[in-house]
Amino acid sequence: MQDLNHRKATARLKILNPDGSPAANQAVRVDQTGHQFLFGCGVFDAVEMMKTRDDQKKQFLEERLAKWLRLFNYGTLPFYWGRYEPQEGKTAETETMAAAAWLRGKGVTLKGHPLCWHTACADWLMQYSNQEILEKQLKRIHRDVTAFKGLIDLWDVINEVVIMPVFDRYDNAITRICREKGRIGLVKEVFAAAKESNPDAVLLINDFNTSASYEILVEGLLEAGVPIGAIGIQSHQHQGYWGLEKLRDVLERYSRFGIPIHFTENTLISGDLMPPHIVDLNDWQVDAWPSTPEGEARQAAEVTEMYTELFSHPLVEAITVWDFNDGCWLKAPSGVVREDNSEKPVYHALDRLIHGDWETHTEQVTDSEGCLCFTGFKGSYLLEAAGGKASLRLDGDSDRTIRFIRKD
Amino acid sequence: MQDLNHRKATARLKILNPDGSPAANQAVRVDQTGHQFLFGCGVFDAVEMMKTRDDQKKQFLEERLAKWLRLFNYGTLPFYWGRYEPQEGKTAETETMAAAAWLRGKGVTLKGHPLCWHTACADWLMQYSNQEILEKQLKRIHRDVTAFKGLIDLWDVINEVVIMPVFDRYDNAITRICREKGRIGLVKEVFAAAKESNPDAVLLINDFNTSASYEILVEGLLEAGVPIGAIGIQSHQHQGYWGLEKLRDVLERYSRFGIPIHFTENTLISGDLMPPHIVDLNDWQVDAWPSTPEGEARQAAEVTEMYTELFSHPLVEAITVWDFNDGCWLKAPSGVVREDNSEKPVYHALDRLIHGDWETHTEQVTDSEGCLCFTGFKGSYLLEAAGGKASLRLDGDSDRTIRFIRKD
Repeated sequence: MQDLNHRKATARLKILNPDGSPAANQAVRVDQTGHQFLFGCGVFDAVEMMKTRDDQKKQFLEERLAKWLRLFNYGTLPFYWGRYEPQEGKTAETETMAAAAWLRGKGVTLKGHPLCWHTACADWLMQYSNQEILEKQLKRIHRDVTAFKGLIDLWDVINEVVIMPVFDRYDNAITRICREKGRIGLVKEVFAAAKESNPDAVLLINDFNTSASYEILVEGLLEAGVPIGAIGIQSHQHQGYWGLEKLRDVLERYSRFGIPIHFTENTLISGDLMPPHIVDLNDWQVDAWPSTPEGEARQAAEVTEMYTELFSHPLVEAITVWDFNDGCWLKAPSGVVREDNSEKPVYHALDRLIHGDWETHTEQVTDSEGCLCFTGFKGSYLLEAAGGKASLRLDGDSDRTIRFIRKD
Repeated sequence: MQDLNHRKATARLKILNPDGSPAANQAVRVDQTGHQFLFGCGVFDAVEMMKTRDDQKKQFLEERLAKWLRLFNYGTLPFYWGRYEPQEGKTAETETMAAAAWLRGKGVTLKGHPLCWHTACADWLMQYSNQEILEKQLKRIHRDVTAFKGLIDLWDVINEVVIMPVFDRYDNAITRICREKGRIGLVKEVFAAAKESNPDAVLLINDFNTSASYEILVEGLLEAGVPIGAIGIQSHQHQGYWGLEKLRDVLERYSRFGIPIHFTENTLISGDLMPPHIVDLNDWQVDAWPSTPEGEARQAAEVTEMYTELFSHPLVEAITVWDFNDGCWLKAPSGVVREDNSEKPVYHALDRLIHGDWETHTEQVTDSEGCLCFTGFKGSYLLEAAGGKASLRLDGDSDRTIRFIRKD
């Protein structure tokens, strides 16, 4: 059994009735309603749902998102420059804003992904000089981070910097400026722009490279004063589960910085594995990539082991499933639901962890002075008794008086 | 033909006779006597020669070093902490100083290697706390850099930092402190110590890792203000010659910083290649590793191609052959002479480049005012005419008056 004390806190409460008298000797239901930990998933379909005029598609996506919301409290919204702004000045702000507002209304914490990346970049940038590209990149960051402030306060500011200046699959505007300014030079500028527009945002750097290169990059960035709020680690495991040994090695090496770690893009698939000789996962193009019963059992077991390990590590604050449903990136069977929205074993495995093992539900009786003490997983709570109810945030040990409101 | 203009300079001289009159209409021999470029080689045997009490061995080493001196102008002397100071406080300073003085007397520029490294480190350090190890490391740098100032003004300050904190072959004092302080943290301290003791020294970082990791490390160090005087690149090619493609890729990636590049440890062997599956070259332990005729021809051709490429690159300022003779590290046939000091084809190939193609020897006639103009490879020159002689440094284009001294 992993030690999960760092995920828990103790509340010492004195509870008052709605009339202000001590709620003495009352049976109180204590139900956790939300997690401090960020259990995330890509939620690109929320934008799709806002945009579509096809009622059938809309309904299908609503059903999908209902399942999404039952499991997760943290969503990644797409800001790929080439898709967000396919023509210079014509952005997807409207539908993205609608999706963000809808999700925030349901209590979902949001992250924007990514503000700077060489892939899925805007082609129209290539007509400009490097100086102009950089100016447009920074302006884009200011524009989008400012527009979404309050709705989106976490950002993957820059993606895959290790490979960025040497990326040679095709010419693109971002590789050009990264080659000119250097990795650290560019990261400094894009982080500064994001920080300026939203000083309280959690700003991430994000990479699939977990080797010494990324480690050294993070060290160099911290030395250069870049305000990294969390280290983002991708873990697309199409070629097979990392296993505990690699997972622990990565955690150990990236813990050294004492900065929160986010597993930003996690994929474990429920079908045949991609062959090991593939270096760039995008090179694996298949017509169909079926999910299999054995694969689904394996996926559920691997996800359970991996989440358990990560949840037990004090510096890990977020894990994000990359694809909610099968058939997205590379057509992989990478989702927690199938393409038809039916739930896979991994959906229930995650549900058991997130809303079972790691969620606190208890009943306590207050003493003669209305006092009650409980220890539970950090997050939000609803307390309910015959005489009233109250909601509560438990982010750390606390000692306080709360007053019930009347139940309606 | 490579463009070598950056290696050359033009001297416009007005030459005076010893009596001060213009040396008009004189035939002047212009002979390059030394190179600005550092053509280097390990010269550990100079220390050995100073130390030995065995006359036969001494004579053998003298013969070896005579051949060394005929080819090279730049030597690497050993400062491996575990060998330089096998017991705390008992150093090899005496014999190393004697070797350094002897080599300087012969016009050889010297580099000390290395001041900080996890390999060949002093075992006695391990009894101390990390704080104490670091203090002793910095004190050692101050002591040795100060002691050799004027004799040794180039230092490999720190070696193989990319792997340093994750080196797991055996416990050692330096990996311990690197793990605690981080790569950049440690590099900053050891460079600061060296700089303090010899502000004019050229300080190198040195690594066998030429991947993005090292590139990013250098970038991070420069951002952190570490005074890197030259980027050291090892190129031990026991598993086969890199070839021009890799060489050019490395040069391109490391040129970006605009800092001099030194090829600090170059090995091309004249025997069977080490199998490609070996990761740590030290794992390849053989009883004997013969040099072969075909291997020697290959080695000479590869060295010629590699030196030609490197000499033509404006940022490369030094190339060092790692082993002067065969049978040193890993018993490899890696030398320019065999174990018995007989010259291999590569010795003559290098001689043809260094003292042939890339050395200027010409005869010019001064005009009626004693003026003479020549363009030659940068370095030192001897000018000789019937009426006298003069020595000259040609480090860049120059326009000056020189006065002959009488020939004796």
